[in-house]
Amino acid sequence: MRATILHATRDIRLEEVPDPTILRPTDAIVRVTATCVCGSDLWPYRGINEVRSPRAIGHEMVGIVEEVGPEVRTVRPGQFVIAPFRYSCGECAHCRAGVHTSCVRGGQGWGGLDGDGEPTPACQGEIVRVPFADGTLVATPEVPDDAMLPSMLALSDVMATGWHCAVAAGVQPGETVVVVGDGAVGLSAVLAASRLGAGRVVAMSRHEPRQAVAREFGATDVVAERGDEGAERIRELTDGVGADRVLECVGTGDSMSQAFASARPGGTVGFVGVPHGVEVPIGTMFRSNIGLAGGVAPVRAYLEQLRDDVLAGEIDPGKVFDLTLPLDQVAEAYAAMDERRAIKVMLRP
Amino acid sequence: MRATILHATRDIRLEEVPDPTILRPTDAIVRVTATCVCGSDLWPYRGINEVRSPRAIGHEMVGIVEEVGPEVRTVRPGQFVIAPFRYSCGECAHCRAGVHTSCVRGGQGWGGLDGDGEPTPACQGEIVRVPFADGTLVATPEVPDDAMLPSMLALSDVMATGWHCAVAAGVQPGETVVVVGDGAVGLSAVLAASRLGAGRVVAMSRHEPRQAVAREFGATDVVAERGDEGAERIRELTDGVGADRVLECVGTGDSMSQAFASARPGGTVGFVGVPHGVEVPIGTMFRSNIGLAGGVAPVRAYLEQLRDDVLAGEIDPGKVFDLTLPLDQVAEAYAAMDERRAIKVMLRP
Repeated sequence: MRATILHATRDIRLEEVPDPTILRPTDAIVRVTATCVCGSDLWPYRGINEVRSPRAIGHEMVGIVEEVGPEVRTVRPGQFVIAPFRYSCGECAHCRAGVHTSCVRGGQGWGGLDGDGEPTPACQGEIVRVPFADGTLVATPEVPDDAMLPSMLALSDVMATGWHCAVAAGVQPGETVVVVGDGAVGLSAVLAASRLGAGRVVAMSRHEPRQAVAREFGATDVVAERGDEGAERIRELTDGVGADRVLECVGTGDSMSQAFASARPGGTVGFVGVPHGVEVPIGTMFRSNIGLAGGVAPVRAYLEQLRDDVLAGEIDPGKVFDLTLPLDQVAEAYAAMDERRAIKVMLRP
Repeated sequence: MRATILHATRDIRLEEVPDPTILRPTDAIVRVTATCVCGSDLWPYRGINEVRSPRAIGHEMVGIVEEVGPEVRTVRPGQFVIAPFRYSCGECAHCRAGVHTSCVRGGQGWGGLDGDGEPTPACQGEIVRVPFADGTLVATPEVPDDAMLPSMLALSDVMATGWHCAVAAGVQPGETVVVVGDGAVGLSAVLAASRLGAGRVVAMSRHEPRQAVAREFGATDVVAERGDEGAERIRELTDGVGADRVLECVGTGDSMSQAFASARPGGTVGFVGVPHGVEVPIGTMFRSNIGLAGGVAPVRAYLEQLRDDVLAGEIDPGKVFDLTLPLDQVAEAYAAMDERRAIKVMLRP
């Protein structure tokens, strides 16, 4: 089969690799229907995270189950399934508590070694071996048509991550929510805040196509300013009080500062961007009672609910995909996202 | 009247100062029945916070209303009142949201300039001018007897602060809670967690008298170890999982590290110690989805409920006072707390 391998900074290639096979009785083999490029894939692609040796990459996919191990109970060949960006056993204390990303058997995740030291394929390829299929995959009642593919694929990471940000921040009906970051996760966080009943959702974005998606997702206001000016605009919009919840969906020091500068006393900052150079302003948190919650999203905990919301037409998170390419153009997919020509690129094997 | 003035590091004196008088129609004058020394008073006393010029000190008191301004509606002369460690207008957006410590009219607090630039007395004295009496003070139905004084006085700061820590951390019935810090606030946090229904409350303390109070307050386990050993003991007590909630009641870098090392993935650290040299481990928070919430406690938000709990005999937070001295021995009170000869000292004018 073919799979995407990151060789070095900006050197990404689709290559022939051996087909994965069932290694354990809890495994499933899934043929990928669609996969995509994540903003976090750009960290190693850009060389900000070092690439020491060639590695398989990609952690988002939907597909059709081809084969299951003898102990798999909840999915069967022929079913369409959504895979979270981390696999999880579903049975340890952390999985049972809904923190599947801390699964004690989760190993290094897609493309790394699993808990037994066996390599797992990554998701930007044609076929994936899924460890702990029961604890990882969620199936749909029927195979969805192509129109629904983007929204199902969005649940694999970005929509569930935006949702986690809003849930971790504690968004309540009627509240004012500011979203920092207009990438696919930030836009998904706008949709999540809106779906959770926020009365006002302010998207901080200066890119018109992204502003348009934010408004489709329920943003009531758009603030194009950043830094001190951005914080001042948020104060103006909130009668000088600040936002009840701020969803930080980038992960840089600047975006975290923007988030804290936008929050009201007693408010909460939710965060889901992988932190790079973030210093938490503990003095501000103390003086103003601003909480900080979030982290790597336990997608599996939300997946059934979000799948049902997509099937019911309540949310349409697939709108974050503004470009679809065949898998053999994966290098162009990375370049398009790197250069911000695309919000998020779907890849079809 | 006499009031406590901090002149320089470890130079604390009771001195004659002018009696305060009503300055604004929303003021009240309160004659102090009891006041006390706070752990946070030790920061300037020890010279860790610089003392640039002599300043009145103390922010906890209960007393009898002597006089009220013409606009005061909720308290009247002769009533026994509890004063939170910050005064608050009760009417601004932050007060209405229950974050009274961010009151826009709160000025510098007791002993500093008020919102109009007028000095306010501090609380370790005989008479206090209370700005915004309606938004600040909470009265009891009757004047309590001396036996109840310590518990009423504890509501002024430490009990409400421990309560805030537990509430901010989101303690739920049945959960496992670890308390870092065995000062009066830490012990109060044990009581708060217990009152909120925690199934297991682990007090981290190596001082026997404090361990004893912790057990009286509902601690089910005591861990004397600190650092890596302390974290290992918490893991042992929780089947390797960690605590659902950790209440950080000190404010140092070491205590915050201890807190994060004790929390389970998906758990929350509550914090109420004034941060001194704290670096928040944002990478750990991200990877393990551990939240951080708390800050300077908005005592006024909890005061009616806690007063009723004391009156009903549900809680007895006054046990944190293990020494009572006349106000003219205030220097000895500071020394006793500084040298950890006393957990918390009550002063009677």
